[in-house]
Amino acid sequence: QERNAALLASACAACHGTNGHSVAGTPSLAGLDKMYFVEQMQLFQTGQRPSTVMMKHAKGYSEDEIRLLAEFFSQQK
Amino acid sequence: QERNAALLASACAACHGTNGHSVAGTPSLAGLDKMYFVEQMQLFQTGQRPSTVMMKHAKGYSEDEIRLLAEFFSQQK
Repeated sequence: QERNAALLASACAACHGTNGHSVAGTPSLAGLDKMYFVEQMQLFQTGQRPSTVMMKHAKGYSEDEIRLLAEFFSQQK
Repeated sequence: QERNAALLASACAACHGTNGHSVAGTPSLAGLDKMYFVEQMQLFQTGQRPSTVMMKHAKGYSEDEIRLLAEFFSQQK
């Protein structure tokens, strides 16, 4: 599970920094509350939380993948 | 149509540069052949063309949106 989560999360680094420590003006994901993370991804998927990139990007993730990511980032110090 | 395409394409700028002129090490999209663009997006969607970010991101776009983007970027000098 963990190896898979880290691999999945590696894509986020492109905009959100290594292990979610953003240096590019995007939100940091490191240490985010799991439920908050899942909720925001769902809001992006439905478009209720507007974002040019995330509204599309979030749609590429399954529920399980989002939970894995939420778990991974909540553990990042 | 055009206004919509430009708005849609604004999201790509985050990684592919303004009007697809990449400065961030990602591929430039400006001037790409329309059919090639559509084909690559489909390969990303099916995972036949592997990419941590695009394999997810491409899934957020409908066929029409991809055609609009293909048209938009093919016209960028």
